[in-house]
Amino acid sequence: MSHATQALSYLKDHHAQYLEELQAFLRLPSISALSDYKSAVKDTAIWLKERLHQAGMVVSRVDETEGNPIVYAETDQDPTKPTILVYGHYDVQPVDPLDQWTHPPFTPTITDNILYARGASDDKGQVYMQLIAAEAWMKTGTLPVNLKFLFEGEEEIGSIHLDDYIRSHQDQLHADVAVISDTPMFADGVPAVCYGLRGLAALEVHIEGPRQDLHSGVFGGAVANPAHVLAQILASLHDSEGRVTVPGFYDAVDTLSATERENFGSLPFDATEFLASTGSPALYGESGYTTLERIWTRPTLEVNGMWSGFIGEGRKTIIPQSAHAKISCRLVPHQDPDDILDRVEEYLRQQCPPTVRLRIERGEGAPGSVTPLDHPATQAAVQAIRDIYHKEAAYIRMGGSIPVVVTFDTVLHIPTVLLGFALPNENFHAPNEHFHLDNFYKGAETVATLWHYLGERAES
Amino acid sequence: MSHATQALSYLKDHHAQYLEELQAFLRLPSISALSDYKSAVKDTAIWLKERLHQAGMVVSRVDETEGNPIVYAETDQDPTKPTILVYGHYDVQPVDPLDQWTHPPFTPTITDNILYARGASDDKGQVYMQLIAAEAWMKTGTLPVNLKFLFEGEEEIGSIHLDDYIRSHQDQLHADVAVISDTPMFADGVPAVCYGLRGLAALEVHIEGPRQDLHSGVFGGAVANPAHVLAQILASLHDSEGRVTVPGFYDAVDTLSATERENFGSLPFDATEFLASTGSPALYGESGYTTLERIWTRPTLEVNGMWSGFIGEGRKTIIPQSAHAKISCRLVPHQDPDDILDRVEEYLRQQCPPTVRLRIERGEGAPGSVTPLDHPATQAAVQAIRDIYHKEAAYIRMGGSIPVVVTFDTVLHIPTVLLGFALPNENFHAPNEHFHLDNFYKGAETVATLWHYLGERAES
Repeated sequence: MSHATQALSYLKDHHAQYLEELQAFLRLPSISALSDYKSAVKDTAIWLKERLHQAGMVVSRVDETEGNPIVYAETDQDPTKPTILVYGHYDVQPVDPLDQWTHPPFTPTITDNILYARGASDDKGQVYMQLIAAEAWMKTGTLPVNLKFLFEGEEEIGSIHLDDYIRSHQDQLHADVAVISDTPMFADGVPAVCYGLRGLAALEVHIEGPRQDLHSGVFGGAVANPAHVLAQILASLHDSEGRVTVPGFYDAVDTLSATERENFGSLPFDATEFLASTGSPALYGESGYTTLERIWTRPTLEVNGMWSGFIGEGRKTIIPQSAHAKISCRLVPHQDPDDILDRVEEYLRQQCPPTVRLRIERGEGAPGSVTPLDHPATQAAVQAIRDIYHKEAAYIRMGGSIPVVVTFDTVLHIPTVLLGFALPNENFHAPNEHFHLDNFYKGAETVATLWHYLGERAES
Repeated sequence: MSHATQALSYLKDHHAQYLEELQAFLRLPSISALSDYKSAVKDTAIWLKERLHQAGMVVSRVDETEGNPIVYAETDQDPTKPTILVYGHYDVQPVDPLDQWTHPPFTPTITDNILYARGASDDKGQVYMQLIAAEAWMKTGTLPVNLKFLFEGEEEIGSIHLDDYIRSHQDQLHADVAVISDTPMFADGVPAVCYGLRGLAALEVHIEGPRQDLHSGVFGGAVANPAHVLAQILASLHDSEGRVTVPGFYDAVDTLSATERENFGSLPFDATEFLASTGSPALYGESGYTTLERIWTRPTLEVNGMWSGFIGEGRKTIIPQSAHAKISCRLVPHQDPDDILDRVEEYLRQQCPPTVRLRIERGEGAPGSVTPLDHPATQAAVQAIRDIYHKEAAYIRMGGSIPVVVTFDTVLHIPTVLLGFALPNENFHAPNEHFHLDNFYKGAETVATLWHYLGERAES
């Protein structure tokens, strides 16, 4: 049934060794956020480089940056084969609160075929899974594709030096498609290919009225209150149907296709469970869309924070000097962040009365991204999942952003396939992070099979 | 012309002594807000009690409270005469920023007949002015009224123990009318009787959505954002004419009489100067009213502070867990604070959608107060001003609250005449506080004359 028989057999024959080695990888406390762990981060990079070398890579390096190093590796590059850029990260989140861990975070522990450790699913387990899928091919024959591995050590602190590295290593990183295993499946037993991400556009609104806070007895009723004006402006940004009122906000948004609606509708999405996970009293969003459609395919405009006047304990009867809001839009593919910020800014200026002063501070933006469903790489991933899981892959999107996907798109001009094998509830960033070993092994097999299909497609 | 000839002559003959003594009073650094000045506050109370005794009071005491003492004094009480309760405070504001004072704050300095010192106008100068007006009568004959003096030492820190004192000394404080000299005249050369104050009703609004801040990528678009809901609710509290939209909010508000409008319209009010003093780009308020009418006679609803989500530096793309606002209403006479809070609360509950939870925390309230223009005490003050200043008094109101006036009204059931001789720009609470000595002397004469008219009215 599979077309990667020897590689898959090799993977199956080495479960014990791989589990042993993955645990060694997880024992290294590569917390990027804490400077005390600086040398552990470095040790982890060296461990990974060595292991890539053992796997049969012809290039395997630790590339220093001004922050944590990037581990880079290449298999033998054959110009007749397609080239795949694999991205992942070897750094992990801090472990606080430590007392909520059932087992020490850097002492990997296996219970009921689940591996508990910081980094098990996010992302060391998946990095290692990529590594062994390549090794299995190389130890048993010839890889059907050229692989390039880009593993960074700063993902959990905002990938500070990654973009610079990509920009200055464009020739080295030249590839046909990128593959990232750092996302979850849709649910347990529902392997998925994620083909769309939302982008972001942020700004801050500052409303200024009097020179300083005014006594609300002496002045109240005679000058505009900046908090009132801000409330009015913010309230004007959505209509009663939950739609953003900024003219042209939805102009570039694709109409949701019948196929996508059908795909999303067929997913085992439990709205009650989703609601419970938020703690909100009710679901709420743009009229005419389901919850998944709202999160995955519709742009939003959210106030992330706002403040004005006296916010301490007790009471201060003032007219605040100013009022402020931090706003960000989640964008969908084809919305241009600059264009959206222009439109939002223009609308805000129109809404603001002359009784106060308005200042807008524009923040950064990043477009959304989408890899077409019929892209050969997407279809190869779907076939690989079919082979290994004996299931049709779910076509999913995500409401968040993965900045490196945007960089791959805008700098390297390549699409990305997001093929992850974690589960949504495996406690990334929280105590008792874990990874289902069944998905670890099957994930490695799926990736090994993906290389087969990508090679085959190139040949045909 | 005056009917208090001997008392007025006595005052004029003792300018030098009074100026000397007032400076001694001002040298005592009675800062109530700073515990380092605790003993200075006590020394000031004792100084004042001694001086009241010298003036001829038959009762003169320092009454301890759990905070700073209250100085209480009485003239000889004749049951055939009306009784006046005089209130003032001997504590002062802190002096920071000290480097902005031209002269040391507790080294009184006279320049161009203006006395510079902390407390000169707020309120030691006016307390002492009340004292010498009584002394002048007692040294030259018989007071036409019974006087009771209530001078507290905690006005600048919220009169913490005053209400308790008044409640537990109702017999002692029994009087026909209260007189307070702790307010400014309308402007230089415009002596005024203040006959109305606004009240206050406060509450806090808490909107809660999800259990904790949510990732705006993962959840954005699917649950209500508490900051949006708060903005919508706050925006709904005013209409486009600047009116409060809460049903019944204006029900108890008196229609402004033609006389009042005429009085206010005739005052030398400079809107440009007023606007400049705020620093706001424009005046703004309820349609159909002038600025003075808006501040003095119309109720308001102001957001004093609001906060939600992430308000630090940078950006955090979240849906905030909650959003909060501190609101206070300035009330005009006849509006009942509880009734207003009921109405505002009910309206807020109606405006809040079921997608979030609303919690309202009611704060304290105090009614506004007004002493009728034709009240004998008001008219006596007007006549006294006419005698001394050779001018018609301005009938003014104030937009703020003076809590003790409410206590006199609700506990002692007496009206209050606000007869102050400071000027609005004499830097109360700021560096270089001062008091025009001309108004100090004329103020004492006006008060002495007021006792005459109040006694005469009681006789007739």
